[in-house]
Amino acid sequence: MKNDTLERLAEVLEERKSADPQSSYVAKLYGKGLDAILKKIGEEATETVMAAKDGEGERIVSEVADLWFHCLVMLAHEGLGPTAVLAELDRRFGLSGLEEKARRTEG
Amino acid sequence: MKNDTLERLAEVLEERKSADPQSSYVAKLYGKGLDAILKKIGEEATETVMAAKDGEGERIVSEVADLWFHCLVMLAHEGLGPTAVLAELDRRFGLSGLEEKARRTEG
Amino acid sequence: MKNDTLERLAEVLEERKSADPQSSYVAKLYGKGLDAILKKIGEEATETVMAAKDGEGERIVSEVADLWFHCLVMLAHEGLGPTAVLAELDRRFGLSGLEEKARRTEG
Amino acid sequence: MKNDTLERLAEVLEERKSADPQSSYVAKLYGKGLDAILKKIGEEATETVMAAKDGEGERIVSEVADLWFHCLVMLAHEGLGPTAVLAELDRRFGLSGLEEKARRTEG
Repeated sequence: MKNDTLERLAEVLEERKSADPQSSYVAKLYGKGLDAILKKIGEEATETVMAAKDGEGERIVSEVADLWFHCLVMLAHEGLGPTAVLAELDRRFGLSGLEEKARRTEG
Repeated sequence: MKNDTLERLAEVLEERKSADPQSSYVAKLYGKGLDAILKKIGEEATETVMAAKDGEGERIVSEVADLWFHCLVMLAHEGLGPTAVLAELDRRFGLSGLEEKARRTEG
Repeated sequence: MKNDTLERLAEVLEERKSADPQSSYVAKLYGKGLDAILKKIGEEATETVMAAKDGEGERIVSEVADLWFHCLVMLAHEGLGPTAVLAELDRRFGLSGLEEKARRTEG
Repeated sequence: MKNDTLERLAEVLEERKSADPQSSYVAKLYGKGLDAILKKIGEEATETVMAAKDGEGERIVSEVADLWFHCLVMLAHEGLGPTAVLAELDRRFGLSGLEEKARRTEG
């Protein structure tokens, strides 16, 4: 049940596209456009790196959540969604993960 | 079914921890240590930003997959996993996403 | 004359260390600490990448200025400065740049 | 004398534009194109952040040198150079740095 978080979240993000830019953080971010969303991805990636350097578990989880969240906003902005990303991860790693081994070590 | 991709992938990443560093891309990355993993997060975040600037859907999906994948490797390296990240996203956005609105606009 | 910009700027940044945190942008940033400075480096690097992708010369120059500026703030915060960075670049590239060729292609 | 490092380095980078892509690190990087250069900027920014988190002075200096170096390569690739960046920093901070205070706190 918890696993479909990303897809339910993507639905919420889709709905927000038609919301008043003043009505929520996400609606405001859409209003600012793609560069503002990408700036947040750069920012949250940096914060993820810093949290990991500090080895603080709760902060790491919180920053990765922020990073993934802003990726979802960007995907929605581009008419994409997490289903395609998860399918790509599935495709690469298969059930056993053995494909990953093969692909990466050759690459 | 596709939705538990992240958690199945986390299991594979967990198993790789005890693998020979030469046996796979991930085993090698663990062997190089945290900084090498974080460098990849910075790199893949930059590639995600560039793919989005180019507006190329397939490349965006592929780069986000790479970014999330290396976040999963980092989480595993730190003894954490995607379940906590998804729970954090769930906690923040709830079923309706209304909490997000409240939290973010106040923050 | 224009060339010593970085060193004169470093002096100003040094003076700001003892300033009231409310007195300037830099004094406030010092007050927030290292993570806030590093977050700006991540942010400005992302903005540099986006400006370059858009191929807008003036914006590229402005974003690189922002990025280097926040590097100078970080260096000052760590008791370092641009002289050491320029010396390192000098050391690596020498007068002819031939050393660079040798070092990098072997590395 | 050390101060014109950036401008001398820019001249070397300019000359490398016409070099055989196999002849040096920079010639190879030009050959790979803008995205490869920008990827390095993202990578070196992340390494700068990690070195600063570790508080290791020599590594900080070395990573900032790498970051600035790849900014110079990008500027050259775009037909720009460090003179414009230094002029921008000069314009913003003037001789006294007082302008910076005024501009930033209003902004």
